[in-house]
Amino acid sequence: MSGNTTGVLFRVTTWGESHGPALGAVIDGCPPLMELAAADIQTELERRKPGQAKASSPRKEGDRVEILAGIFEGKTTGTPISLIIWNRDVRSGDYDALRNVFRPGHGDYTYVQKYSIRDHRGGGRASGRETAARVAAGAVARKILAREGIMVRAYTLALGGVRAETGIIAEARQNRFNCPDPVAAVKMEAALKKAQKAGDTLGGIVEIIVQGCPAGLGAPVFDKLDADLAKALMGVGTVKGVEIGPGFAAAGMTGSQCNDPLLPSGFAANHAGGILAGIASGQDLVIRAACKPIPSVAREQDTVDVNGKPVKLTIGGRHDVSVIPRILPVCEAMVCLVLVDHLLRQRAIVGFLSG
Amino acid sequence: MSGNTTGVLFRVTTWGESHGPALGAVIDGCPPLMELAAADIQTELERRKPGQAKASSPRKEGDRVEILAGIFEGKTTGTPISLIIWNRDVRSGDYDALRNVFRPGHGDYTYVQKYSIRDHRGGGRASGRETAARVAAGAVARKILAREGIMVRAYTLALGGVRAETGIIAEARQNRFNCPDPVAAVKMEAALKKAQKAGDTLGGIVEIIVQGCPAGLGAPVFDKLDADLAKALMGVGTVKGVEIGPGFAAAGMTGSQCNDPLLPSGFAANHAGGILAGIASGQDLVIRAACKPIPSVAREQDTVDVNGKPVKLTIGGRHDVSVIPRILPVCEAMVCLVLVDHLLRQRAIVGFLSG
Amino acid sequence: MSGNTTGVLFRVTTWGESHGPALGAVIDGCPPLMELAAADIQTELERRKPGQAKASSPRKEGDRVEILAGIFEGKTTGTPISLIIWNRDVRSGDYDALRNVFRPGHGDYTYVQKYSIRDHRGGGRASGRETAARVAAGAVARKILAREGIMVRAYTLALGGVRAETGIIAEARQNRFNCPDPVAAVKMEAALKKAQKAGDTLGGIVEIIVQGCPAGLGAPVFDKLDADLAKALMGVGTVKGVEIGPGFAAAGMTGSQCNDPLLPSGFAANHAGGILAGIASGQDLVIRAACKPIPSVAREQDTVDVNGKPVKLTIGGRHDVSVIPRILPVCEAMVCLVLVDHLLRQRAIVGFLSG
Amino acid sequence: MSGNTTGVLFRVTTWGESHGPALGAVIDGCPPLMELAAADIQTELERRKPGQAKASSPRKEGDRVEILAGIFEGKTTGTPISLIIWNRDVRSGDYDALRNVFRPGHGDYTYVQKYSIRDHRGGGRASGRETAARVAAGAVARKILAREGIMVRAYTLALGGVRAETGIIAEARQNRFNCPDPVAAVKMEAALKKAQKAGDTLGGIVEIIVQGCPAGLGAPVFDKLDADLAKALMGVGTVKGVEIGPGFAAAGMTGSQCNDPLLPSGFAANHAGGILAGIASGQDLVIRAACKPIPSVAREQDTVDVNGKPVKLTIGGRHDVSVIPRILPVCEAMVCLVLVDHLLRQRAIVGFLSG
Repeated sequence: MSGNTTGVLFRVTTWGESHGPALGAVIDGCPPLMELAAADIQTELERRKPGQAKASSPRKEGDRVEILAGIFEGKTTGTPISLIIWNRDVRSGDYDALRNVFRPGHGDYTYVQKYSIRDHRGGGRASGRETAARVAAGAVARKILAREGIMVRAYTLALGGVRAETGIIAEARQNRFNCPDPVAAVKMEAALKKAQKAGDTLGGIVEIIVQGCPAGLGAPVFDKLDADLAKALMGVGTVKGVEIGPGFAAAGMTGSQCNDPLLPSGFAANHAGGILAGIASGQDLVIRAACKPIPSVAREQDTVDVNGKPVKLTIGGRHDVSVIPRILPVCEAMVCLVLVDHLLRQRAIVGFLSG
Repeated sequence: MSGNTTGVLFRVTTWGESHGPALGAVIDGCPPLMELAAADIQTELERRKPGQAKASSPRKEGDRVEILAGIFEGKTTGTPISLIIWNRDVRSGDYDALRNVFRPGHGDYTYVQKYSIRDHRGGGRASGRETAARVAAGAVARKILAREGIMVRAYTLALGGVRAETGIIAEARQNRFNCPDPVAAVKMEAALKKAQKAGDTLGGIVEIIVQGCPAGLGAPVFDKLDADLAKALMGVGTVKGVEIGPGFAAAGMTGSQCNDPLLPSGFAANHAGGILAGIASGQDLVIRAACKPIPSVAREQDTVDVNGKPVKLTIGGRHDVSVIPRILPVCEAMVCLVLVDHLLRQRAIVGFLSG
Repeated sequence: MSGNTTGVLFRVTTWGESHGPALGAVIDGCPPLMELAAADIQTELERRKPGQAKASSPRKEGDRVEILAGIFEGKTTGTPISLIIWNRDVRSGDYDALRNVFRPGHGDYTYVQKYSIRDHRGGGRASGRETAARVAAGAVARKILAREGIMVRAYTLALGGVRAETGIIAEARQNRFNCPDPVAAVKMEAALKKAQKAGDTLGGIVEIIVQGCPAGLGAPVFDKLDADLAKALMGVGTVKGVEIGPGFAAAGMTGSQCNDPLLPSGFAANHAGGILAGIASGQDLVIRAACKPIPSVAREQDTVDVNGKPVKLTIGGRHDVSVIPRILPVCEAMVCLVLVDHLLRQRAIVGFLSG
Repeated sequence: MSGNTTGVLFRVTTWGESHGPALGAVIDGCPPLMELAAADIQTELERRKPGQAKASSPRKEGDRVEILAGIFEGKTTGTPISLIIWNRDVRSGDYDALRNVFRPGHGDYTYVQKYSIRDHRGGGRASGRETAARVAAGAVARKILAREGIMVRAYTLALGGVRAETGIIAEARQNRFNCPDPVAAVKMEAALKKAQKAGDTLGGIVEIIVQGCPAGLGAPVFDKLDADLAKALMGVGTVKGVEIGPGFAAAGMTGSQCNDPLLPSGFAANHAGGILAGIASGQDLVIRAACKPIPSVAREQDTVDVNGKPVKLTIGGRHDVSVIPRILPVCEAMVCLVLVDHLLRQRAIVGFLSG
């Protein structure tokens, strides 16, 4: 068990390396009778692919997803859905120089510590490409959620130190960062260009808003809804921090500031971020994920080889300047997977709720 | 499955309500032949109990743990360890007024949404008392880790807006906050008193340092070591944010700042917080958890009753002003549980690592 | 993970040794709002206890179950139900002679092989007493099933080579073996007496009939309903074989004999034993479990001690002549646990079945 | 969760329908550094394929397995191994007549009860073809076991009422049933021919012997080694009964017959079938699985259509007369999966066994 499966009832297993023949996902537990076509999934993959953004890697992934099982005459059957994305435009030779060297900030060193073997081509299993399978599986989860009126949207809150200050989420998709603050978006663009010229990379913060999440989803102890969301997002390679609602700001608040009074019309505020005691309150879920800068900088770096000898390393190949905006659909996918799983878990007891 | 179990190989299941007869934990998967006595666990429970700190609740929990199974002649046998803590000094009558009212900031409302029934006495299962069982189980995990040279320590990084600026961890236990900055500790004390007078409560930030964590622990995709740590800590009721290493600060860094160069002598820095690609690097693990202020303020609050009628609520009873410092051993316990589980998981493949 | 938990959504964890202070079960996932009292569970424990049957062990277990968590004002809350049964009338001294000796047919030798340590008192965790916790948990499952009109009943099909040939299940409870064939029951009684005089023990076969099991329960591949039933029953220490429907007899049938034609009025026969492709058909489930004779015979046996030295062993203490009839409620309990789990699993998707 | 995953540490997920584009398996938890090539897996698939035996279906499955992930330069990396087998020679049209009809003895009716939708082509997910993915995954498990000196072999104990009476397992592979009794093998051949002429099908019994299983594998309560083996085998569509050691015969034995005395040289007999208290004793494991006759007989059968109207059904297409011998490698594969999983689980604690 290397932990490549997530979920209790809606279980997703992913597989595949950056430069292997393909990568994919198996979904076990998708409810039957839902219309599902490859095009539903392809739409989400397009949002993740590099071609869309100037600051993104020029490698043309051109991912095409195929559904190999679990669908009959356009509908899910309740049996496992198998998704495959073939790797194309793979130039493993680009990575020959990295075979015996540990890239700083990557998993090269820790993979060898864990497994005593490493597929060095493009990061192997540790590549960001692995998230394509998550996005594919997340697209199926998203369709289920949509039927229940649950909408998951991520936008860029910060990039390279520039933070969105104002803006309406509805306007977010008008710029390529999906940033609700158009002024900040312009500054983010500039920050990216500057970093690229400097051979450097940038981090950022993603905010995910869930609308329509029914009250009652979640569980009170270890499998709290926020706990599962935190795991899901921290399980994305680039993420170093996760917050719910005010998050770290809550640490500086008083109880009377942070509590959300209940009124006959509903909650007076949402400092809970939509989750109380691990269970959804019916308000919007508000989740943030901090992304570190991509470790593949274009500058020379100090490192060692597999024998511990010092090496001056300059990474070639094709790399993004920031995981933003490509990480947005990945974060959405992870949130969708968690929500569907808890939706099904709650369904199991709904029939008993009238005693 | 309400998610009251955590872990894959070292599995801990907790049970019990604040005002029921007892609470407890069952540990399945503890390795055999380890010396274990109730006193090993009692030590950790003492650190969590209210009596130690002025700002803590005056309810005398006086928790005494008993081991009901899994030990033979002072040693673990490999079979389930059952721990029980009897509830004493329980005054359920204190809570009669809360039977039909939803306390803001608590799980009262969401429990009813989820289960259509709620044990209102002291928060029932949602009470902070539930963490006593976690601390008890964590004490067993801690003993296993100690045998492997792994040490887990939490200290107070911030409380009520006061943040530790300097200090050595080794000095931390010289004040009741276990704060490494003695000047900050004095200010924290003052902030607590002020909040108490104002009938209010405070949040804070806990930092957990793990020393001696062997490289290779963890897993690369969904069950990343940091993902499991994030889930474990976000699964503590009070926590609203989790960071690894620089956490949210990483979002503002460049790749050349954030990468940790490798030198023949080891890593030149620890911006990874000890985890790369979900796998421990052998450096210290650095983890932070943001705790919200306790919702049971002594001030009048607006809320509604179970029929949606508006209510002016003043919570009586005995309550802490902050979860700090009592939350420190809880955070340590959760980290210990995750580490032992991944330690055992890695053990399963160690024998194969030479091919 | 030593495998002391069973179930996906209705999860039961048991703990406790024969001669420890207590044993118990934690049920996580019981639906809320169901009336539940200790008396509901006690009824089932009485059926398992030794005092009822002459051929059973004269040790007075006098098990009294207590509910320590998960109930509020007489109803389940959805949080973990903790059940405890204190061990009384424990005479560990009876077992001193067995400390360093491996009893043939018991788990003494294999426990040492697995754990390098063994609680020799009464078999420790391997004792049949462990099944008391299963029966207690099963009683909760049985209550849930009863609400859904599902009834689980075990009877004695064979004992000591005597096999029930005729009889109606409704009459089964008129003899202490719960054997539907009154003539066979008399012969079974004689066989037991004869074996007891000879210092020997007997095996037997239990048949379990489930009425009212809704069509659709189960899953088609690894978690087939019959697969989970087989695991549950083979997980009882005494069981060496499990059959569904005709079982081993099916191996000698032709397809045209074994197939159950479908008629507008339903299935024309039940050679499937109520399960097709791992999913319940709506007919009665028919399950059989073969129980080996109790290994604690009163005769001298050859064995070795922990140093491999030969020993002539005569086991003292108080022992049953057969696990029948005490095993009947244990088998029922295991079947109940499996059915509730699959019931909840199916509930999770029911809301989607209309597309 | 439709239960398409098996194992705790060596986790196998299968997917695919009989007449979909492909079927496959994902293995998560295979130890790293093991040499593995598609040819290792192909060998086992060849044993399962129909072409080898006259009594088998003439459909040419010609399965070719491809490894899509988890291998680097010929060795396992510890990341998920993805196996795919493309479906060829698929003639879905053969099944048009079955779209609205429930075939007796198949899962057609129960699938509709469970999912309200069914892929009728060749049984869809319920097809015996699904076992190809199990055999593929089992081949990887077998390689791991071989390194540890563990050998798993299945042979035909009975077919169509003919039972092997004598014979040495070593001779078994000299006939196509892998039956150790050459005289019985001839009679089995005749029985098959007779059944085929009669348009009927036959059941049989498979015996699986495991040599070299280390003492200590297994777990004492719910996850007993025999319990997991029973689940694994009963999870094969055709199996209606599972026995360990004497199995149902144990029910007729006395304790003094059934106990295996321990001598300084080892066990004097193996009535335990190699497992005591759920844990391997170090002796050979002896397991039997009863297979029902294939339900697709060539005779006219009574059934109903999806509207409950009576139908006279004659199944066309290409079908085997018995699952034997094709089921032998499937049974072996299931046993291999269980053993590797328990091997890894035991590895996790081995380092602690010296205290």
